Amino acid sequence: MQSTIHAGSARTLFLDAPAVARLIAGKGLQQCIAGIAEAIRADFLRWPDFVKSPRSASHCPQGVIELMPVSDATLFGFKYVNGHPGNLRFGLPTVMAFGVLAEMKTGMPLLLCDLTLPTALRTAAMSALAAVDLARKDSRVMALIGNGAQSEFQALAFRDLVGIDELRLYDIDPAATRKLMRNLEGSGLRMHACAGIAEAVRGADIVTTVTADKRNATIVSDDMLAPGMHINAVGGDCPGKTELSPAVLAAASVFVEYAPQTRIEGDIQQMPADFPVTEIWQVLAGAQPGRRHDKEITVFDSVGFALEDYSALRFLHAAALETDAGEEISLVGTAGDPRDLFASLGLAARPGLVAA
Amino acid sequence: MQSTIHAGSARTLFLDAPAVARLIAGKGLQQCIAGIAEAIRADFLRWPDFVKSPRSASHCPQGVIELMPVSDATLFGFKYVNGHPGNLRFGLPTVMAFGVLAEMKTGMPLLLCDLTLPTALRTAAMSALAAVDLARKDSRVMALIGNGAQSEFQALAFRDLVGIDELRLYDIDPAATRKLMRNLEGSGLRMHACAGIAEAVRGADIVTTVTADKRNATIVSDDMLAPGMHINAVGGDCPGKTELSPAVLAAASVFVEYAPQTRIEGDIQQMPADFPVTEIWQVLAGAQPGRRHDKEITVFDSVGFALEDYSALRFLHAAALETDAGEEISLVGTAGDPRDLFASLGLAARPGLVAA
Repeated sequence: MQSTIHAGSARTLFLDAPAVARLIAGKGLQQCIAGIAEAIRADFLRWPDFVKSPRSASHCPQGVIELMPVSDATLFGFKYVNGHPGNLRFGLPTVMAFGVLAEMKTGMPLLLCDLTLPTALRTAAMSALAAVDLARKDSRVMALIGNGAQSEFQALAFRDLVGIDELRLYDIDPAATRKLMRNLEGSGLRMHACAGIAEAVRGADIVTTVTADKRNATIVSDDMLAPGMHINAVGGDCPGKTELSPAVLAAASVFVEYAPQTRIEGDIQQMPADFPVTEIWQVLAGAQPGRRHDKEITVFDSVGFALEDYSALRFLHAAALETDAGEEISLVGTAGDPRDLFASLGLAARPGLVAA
Repeated sequence: MQSTIHAGSARTLFLDAPAVARLIAGKGLQQCIAGIAEAIRADFLRWPDFVKSPRSASHCPQGVIELMPVSDATLFGFKYVNGHPGNLRFGLPTVMAFGVLAEMKTGMPLLLCDLTLPTALRTAAMSALAAVDLARKDSRVMALIGNGAQSEFQALAFRDLVGIDELRLYDIDPAATRKLMRNLEGSGLRMHACAGIAEAVRGADIVTTVTADKRNATIVSDDMLAPGMHINAVGGDCPGKTELSPAVLAAASVFVEYAPQTRIEGDIQQMPADFPVTEIWQVLAGAQPGRRHDKEITVFDSVGFALEDYSALRFLHAAALETDAGEEISLVGTAGDPRDLFASLGLAARPGLVAA
């Protein structure tokens, strides 16, 4: 039997978690956040080209497992991601992810890749990209509420893309804040550990909330608001998990990634179904205004949308090919004559396996 | 930094396509089809325990890519699968698939596995399982229309689970029929190559259609029907792709896997939204009758449901652990302190990478 596979078309490139970390460290974290932000911008500018749907979510008492697909005429991408706040007791991260990029014209998976670390990068890149149009241009001070696994990436993305130079930090676990301050030593960011949320928020131009509890919490209430503030609400991202009080949302102009999904998962799940929101792609494309004046309060109600992962997968695929990273695997069966799946079993020489 | 990972909980078992073929050949194809059928029966008997949804499908002119998730309180499973009828010109199979089984309580992926070959086994197992209750008990002769990659598995499943001993074969490509007859030499099945569909169907107790064209075709029309016939319609499985004429459906008692999905994808997409169907799990559970009398015409309008893949993944996972097959991979990032994703980059020693 002769193989009829075209070289290079029938194998999947695999980047396991260590390979992804090496790729990002090697290319430079700063460069990767910027590169993913550029990929997101480019993809969001052609928003109507994509087939979009709210992600599918499987809930259980301990957490959620989600599948996030998106496609255009050329590529299909999806991410598998979980959210299990109690995972630390098993020594596992609360969020773990992997993704696949596939060719639409054949269905062949081109790339299989850990997305645990890239999810943090793309979330931070998306947040900062939105803040460029939604925060005041003179923003320099950011409150960062929740200093867990994602927080350093938010800090660096806002430093590089928005011009933040000072962080006001708070976490219910002081050890998390100490970890963040240790990790960002040498980053050029001035950092202050604060005793509470109100103290951290006071005087901040931007407030980023990235907390993990799976419940309706009020991290930011309306008495903490100041005119001109931008709120980057990242942690309210599934039904029953919110961070902002309804009064904060009512006082603000609210921007979202993909409205049908955010109405299910975002902080606006607390608001009526016709609560007005603007999709951020329209702002990036110049079709809708972002911030309109210096006193306006803006909220980016971010839940994470499949297109951001598609952009991250595109970026990682190009970076891996450039640097020869990863290894080729046989993720799907393509060997031998594609019309003869049965032959791939190699049973011909062992008729006893087949006979009744 | 000390690893806090529990041994065995943070790695994913990976079975690539050759490992899956070896596992199935080693265990025996017959044993695997029977084992998967038993797993499907066990899971379908606890149908209400599962969170179910129609699969998500991304269509393009050349084909479709689908994600098929399902979960119960313990396990989450999903399959990635494509259908691209023109793939042979790229030397690729028309259908390729892989799947993941994950733990609900942590979201950790336990198994990543090629499902190209297992998809053929589980489809055949499901068809035969349904036919046990839907075909006449004295069925011995099966027409097999479409002799492509899936056909041998259908033939063997019906031999072993239903008692078929004679096949009447037809394919628009005579080479496909020759391939099937060659592959099933020594199987004990009597085989006849027929000149057309009508000839193949004449005298058959069961008619299995497993054709691949992505269009509305009429493989079986009502003039071919005989009293007491069972039709196992496998190839009509996405919008615009059907195999049976509406008159065949109107004349028959129709059974499906999961009605909300089959009304979109199955042959019954041609019928009104309230066309009566019975979900096969109710027949397996004894809550609804299957075949009611010897003259009844029955149709199993099979499109393939996520739970069948979940059952196949369960079977393969157990078989792999039993035989020590596959290898462990770091599919998702779990190394190091799960609260400190940033540290996994190993940037501490290279502050230049972080500084602005």
